[in-house]
Amino acid sequence: MKLEQRYEGKAKKVYATENPHEYVVEYKDDATAFNGVKKAQIQGKGEINNAITAHLFPLLERAGIPTHFLEKLGDREQRVRAVEIIPVEVIVRNVAAGSFSKRLGIEEGTPLARPVVEYCYKSDALGDPLINTDTAVALGWAGEDELRRIRELALNIRDFLVPYFAERGIRLIDFKLEFGRTHDGTVVLADEISPDTCRFWDAQTNEKMDKDRFRRDLGGVEDAYAEMLRRVTAPAEG
Amino acid sequence: MKLEQRYEGKAKKVYATENPHEYVVEYKDDATAFNGVKKAQIQGKGEINNAITAHLFPLLERAGIPTHFLEKLGDREQRVRAVEIIPVEVIVRNVAAGSFSKRLGIEEGTPLARPVVEYCYKSDALGDPLINTDTAVALGWAGEDELRRIRELALNIRDFLVPYFAERGIRLIDFKLEFGRTHDGTVVLADEISPDTCRFWDAQTNEKMDKDRFRRDLGGVEDAYAEMLRRVTAPAEG
Repeated sequence: MKLEQRYEGKAKKVYATENPHEYVVEYKDDATAFNGVKKAQIQGKGEINNAITAHLFPLLERAGIPTHFLEKLGDREQRVRAVEIIPVEVIVRNVAAGSFSKRLGIEEGTPLARPVVEYCYKSDALGDPLINTDTAVALGWAGEDELRRIRELALNIRDFLVPYFAERGIRLIDFKLEFGRTHDGTVVLADEISPDTCRFWDAQTNEKMDKDRFRRDLGGVEDAYAEMLRRVTAPAEG
Repeated sequence: MKLEQRYEGKAKKVYATENPHEYVVEYKDDATAFNGVKKAQIQGKGEINNAITAHLFPLLERAGIPTHFLEKLGDREQRVRAVEIIPVEVIVRNVAAGSFSKRLGIEEGTPLARPVVEYCYKSDALGDPLINTDTAVALGWAGEDELRRIRELALNIRDFLVPYFAERGIRLIDFKLEFGRTHDGTVVLADEISPDTCRFWDAQTNEKMDKDRFRRDLGGVEDAYAEMLRRVTAPAEG
């Protein structure tokens, strides 16, 4: 099924298939932080992030969000639509945390009066710098219509995910999305939704259940990822 | 005329007057760069920036841009409308330069396919970090309607200034604007337009004729400011 490798990222590999409109994505256990400066393996991460993404993307499809996801193939693999990744990462923030808190001097955990959508240029060499939509259009990274669509989809994804996680005892603090263009130019959600790409805080204790445990050496990284898989795939709490 | 000092910035002081709706602004020779790390005096800068701003703001008013400017009072002083400064600095870029070039790895001097409007949070303590309009609204720094108006005015100001400077042998590379609210909530252009707040390149030689001569130790700082005053106040070239 898998043919030649088309791309290797920090957490996934992408392979061509016999169908030019489909890829296979393989999830790795590799974890990086601070733009690749910190590197390690998180045991089981590949399987967990594959399973969480393969659970959430079909739910998003049913909620009207087009995604690249087609089918889970195995523990670490999924079949997806072949897309050209738009090099504009989208961060949706509900609560101040991470780089946002640091940059703006806003204490981590401060709720935002309304969701904030930020855009970064996807470039390891430059450290994924913050940009805005003017810059993305001026430098040819995305079209105006694409960016309008991306913003609409990002906010719709938020509106789906916030209650979904809340019903499972999780506060969705912020999350990063990537979008791609299919062969006919349709903009679809790509990449993954997982503890690598979201901040998840336990609704009772505010305990971090995401990659910040790795970034900040908080310990219990594998347990947090496993617990997130359990909660994501569990039915909503009464 | 001047009563108590209301504010002292890096390049100007603002005084109350007997009229609660008016201030007096005094332009200083003090120059700072890199968020205040580099400090010096530029001889004559206060007079020149006062004169350039006092020349341009009435022209902008006539072009339909509301400003805080009322009257030049003396070599270093002008009478302005009392405004509350909106803590969102607006940068309009026509050509890649400065922090934009550095952050995005775009060679300085690269023309942008369309103007880029960037927003920074006006905070010396934080180093004027890049933000976007979502952030400004979520954190209460400006309203959505205000930001829409600010963007419209910023682009109108660009459309006036680019040909104005071009007719005087100057390429307007980028510029920073600040806006304020009058007592009735009207959004008006405030602060200054000068070699401190714009990048001006000679149209023939691309020689820098602005504060970058100070930031980058290029020499000839006073001469560049004086030449800019001469060109700004000169009639358009044939």
